[in-house]
Amino acid sequence: MNTGSEKYLALSGGIGGAKLALGLQHCLDKSQLSIVANTGDDFEHLGLAISPDIDTLLYTLADLNNQELGWGRRDESWNFAEASKQIGLDTWFSLGDRDLAIHLYRSQRLREGANLSQIVEELCNRFKIQANIIPMSDSPVRTMVDTNIGTLPFQEYFVKNRCKPIVSEIRFDGIEKARPAQAFLECLDDSNLSAIIICPSNPFLSVNPILSLPSLKEKIKAVGKPVIVVSPIVQGNSIKGPTAKLMQELNLECSVETIANLYKDISSAIVIDNTDKSAINDIKSTGLEILSANIVMNSLQDKIGLANEVIDFSRSL
Amino acid sequence: MNTGSEKYLALSGGIGGAKLALGLQHCLDKSQLSIVANTGDDFEHLGLAISPDIDTLLYTLADLNNQELGWGRRDESWNFAEASKQIGLDTWFSLGDRDLAIHLYRSQRLREGANLSQIVEELCNRFKIQANIIPMSDSPVRTMVDTNIGTLPFQEYFVKNRCKPIVSEIRFDGIEKARPAQAFLECLDDSNLSAIIICPSNPFLSVNPILSLPSLKEKIKAVGKPVIVVSPIVQGNSIKGPTAKLMQELNLECSVETIANLYKDISSAIVIDNTDKSAINDIKSTGLEILSANIVMNSLQDKIGLANEVIDFSRSL
Repeated sequence: MNTGSEKYLALSGGIGGAKLALGLQHCLDKSQLSIVANTGDDFEHLGLAISPDIDTLLYTLADLNNQELGWGRRDESWNFAEASKQIGLDTWFSLGDRDLAIHLYRSQRLREGANLSQIVEELCNRFKIQANIIPMSDSPVRTMVDTNIGTLPFQEYFVKNRCKPIVSEIRFDGIEKARPAQAFLECLDDSNLSAIIICPSNPFLSVNPILSLPSLKEKIKAVGKPVIVVSPIVQGNSIKGPTAKLMQELNLECSVETIANLYKDISSAIVIDNTDKSAINDIKSTGLEILSANIVMNSLQDKIGLANEVIDFSRSL
Repeated sequence: MNTGSEKYLALSGGIGGAKLALGLQHCLDKSQLSIVANTGDDFEHLGLAISPDIDTLLYTLADLNNQELGWGRRDESWNFAEASKQIGLDTWFSLGDRDLAIHLYRSQRLREGANLSQIVEELCNRFKIQANIIPMSDSPVRTMVDTNIGTLPFQEYFVKNRCKPIVSEIRFDGIEKARPAQAFLECLDDSNLSAIIICPSNPFLSVNPILSLPSLKEKIKAVGKPVIVVSPIVQGNSIKGPTAKLMQELNLECSVETIANLYKDISSAIVIDNTDKSAINDIKSTGLEILSANIVMNSLQDKIGLANEVIDFSRSL
């Protein structure tokens, strides 16, 4: 499968995106795979710099992710959280004992003057990860969600309020001044780049922060290589997370057709689930090339299988 | 035992001092007992504000101290430390999973603008501690140890280098600008103060930072109440910690006589161990009143017993 100098750039949010990233990691060498992570979910909590999507990618690609919980770190314990509750520290964002190490590391290195890209690279090396995880930007971008109960920083919407508030708008504070991370720009400039893969992540909360970086869409178009979006919607519902609920609140039909329309300007192709084949005719009008595959990734074999299909598809474009 | 309006002020370092403080807590009401803690051992580690002597007092008086280890918190787990090691974080200062809560709480509250006194009072309340723990000062004081391998911040001497370097001098950075904490000054001004008790803590590393606060010795003398030192030395050796080794390096004989001489200007009385009775005649020349008692506190009954004897002794002075 692996054919030497071909390089792939994946854009990813957290859990859904990380599944495909793991599949890609199994198909490609480290030099071939870069994954740009959304940092709009990042926030400061108890004085710690927390980067949920980066950490989900780190733990997933390091084979340290907690498969029972579906998030966080494997073999986790919660004694810090219990002791925190006793003294009245905020505990709405769960910090596991092992997980804390990564947050203290990041916070410490940021204070020492390292940028997020360096820190994530260091963690990739420490965890011996066979891919390059790159934060979308080293400048802080903070997703803010306008809702019926007011404007909420992303984690307060997502975790503290469990996505219950009704969303009217999503903004990315700091995006105007944010520059794509240097390594991200280098991937786009690399003449060996074969394709850009938009992982099955939430389009509004995970992918759009990345695509909203100044001039980024223009840069992606200028690359002139296939941009393949893997649908986060299967049979009118989101595989994971609040995508479906959010689409409804934003008055969008929750369908692969909507996904195709959302991405038609930036992408050249879409991968939809085999069970959504009936939508192919509708999607054709967007001008996107279409692959149908099994995009619900339960097992590791599912992930590797989809990654292989996406890579093969990219070669055909 | 408890006789209403009498108040006691104890000066304490960590483990040894906390034992007597626990005994005193059993003999007195919360309104009667204030314990001023050394903060010269405080330091910043991984971006966390750490106050070892305060925390030892908190955990001991809250009955949350780790009796197997002799330090730290009960029912502790070390998963954070294990994960930290994996990613190359400094792990020479052991941070338990539960213990981390107190450090994040303190660091967070300091950033919010609270001073250390407030924070410790909050923690005393959270832990329902029946005594008032007061940091010696809200200004940072940092014990620096001049040794044969260079000048070391206290924790690097004490923990990282396990007290192995040979000490030539001990200094307290920031002491000139440090003001005793407001609650400390209020204890000294309280007309109900019956006695000041210097707990069996290291004279150089735990008690001297407190006594070195500007004008403090004068203030203590001006109180005009008994100042009773409980010897940290028994039969020519320290009960706990590096006191004996340190005294040798500072060319001091490790004996209760030396302790009496060190404190003779500030104190009016000394409590020595029953096994050191032969030193009574020598100590008399210092002008100090002398009580001999069982000062090696192993059991809770030992602690309460000594506390009762010290309180009784203070009444006789």
